[in-house]
Amino acid sequence: MKLLEDRIAREGKVLPGNIVKVDGFLNHRVDPVLLRELAREFKAHFGGKKINLIMTCEASGIPIATVAAEEFGVPMLFVKKAKSNNLGADVYTSEIQSYTYGKTVTLTCSKSWLHEGDRVLIIDDFMARGQAMNGVIDIINQAKAELVGIGIAIEKGFQLGGDKLREKGIDCYSLAIIEEANENGIRFRR
Amino acid sequence: MKLLEDRIAREGKVLPGNIVKVDGFLNHRVDPVLLRELAREFKAHFGGKKINLIMTCEASGIPIATVAAEEFGVPMLFVKKAKSNNLGADVYTSEIQSYTYGKTVTLTCSKSWLHEGDRVLIIDDFMARGQAMNGVIDIINQAKAELVGIGIAIEKGFQLGGDKLREKGIDCYSLAIIEEANENGIRFRR
Repeated sequence: MKLLEDRIAREGKVLPGNIVKVDGFLNHRVDPVLLRELAREFKAHFGGKKINLIMTCEASGIPIATVAAEEFGVPMLFVKKAKSNNLGADVYTSEIQSYTYGKTVTLTCSKSWLHEGDRVLIIDDFMARGQAMNGVIDIINQAKAELVGIGIAIEKGFQLGGDKLREKGIDCYSLAIIEEANENGIRFRR
Repeated sequence: MKLLEDRIAREGKVLPGNIVKVDGFLNHRVDPVLLRELAREFKAHFGGKKINLIMTCEASGIPIATVAAEEFGVPMLFVKKAKSNNLGADVYTSEIQSYTYGKTVTLTCSKSWLHEGDRVLIIDDFMARGQAMNGVIDIINQAKAELVGIGIAIEKGFQLGGDKLREKGIDCYSLAIIEEANENGIRFRR
């Protein structure tokens, strides 16, 4: 999606190790005008499929998933990373390795809001190795719900998380796929 | 706001200790249609004031703050609770006591996105003792930005966080204030 690629090229900060910081418009400060355009693009791609729930993983996936949920006219359920006293005991859990936080994290989701037969679209802001994504998919499988597809704003193509999901036949649609980011700039997948 | 009070009365679950669970529409699974109505109500109240940034605290404040940001036409900045390797060192921090998580939490916000003179509206889903709110206000003060007001979806009036802010002269506008919740039902402040 050219709009997003242009924004990344213009405002993203490239750090050593193929890291691209987009915390000015996507995952710390967020631009709701951009989010709306991204959500419309997800709707254009997935709109023909029956979807009754959008899921994401806290925290930085929540803004784009919220706007997408409004676009699709369905509720949004965010899986929690931190242990909260408010969730209760009747939960699905899945352990993932988080590179962002440098530790193992237990994803948690109340059984009250995810059911057998639910048709789920996962929306997230970022995908690298796909660890968080696999945790959310694990929870969807535990609930016997159905994964309809995955919409990602920015995928780091060279970390292969997205390609591994596509190899499994999952419709994983990323709006911008970064193949390389270094002092020469950012190269997107064509 | 009658729409929100009715929703709380209908779908909120009262647990021992004056706890009201609203995780079916506000802070785990979220209803974007409701969020849009709440955001419009915030706009009706605060719309006459100059505001150039909406801030909230991760994670459950993010959905409503995102929709409010779109309603106000400004960016949304969410303060982080978890230590992330992505933020960098140039940050504002504030320590708070979190009752939800039962521990001390360090709120963190990049200095890149909050500046002197910014006119900030804080939006959050819930307020009880106001600990998280005080942390965000502390960060706003550190940046020499200006707090224009606070919009809360649900305030637990009997835990006094909101009243303490109002006593300081802050425009703290809560859409539903719960005074009591027990086996007889939920009583809202009039």
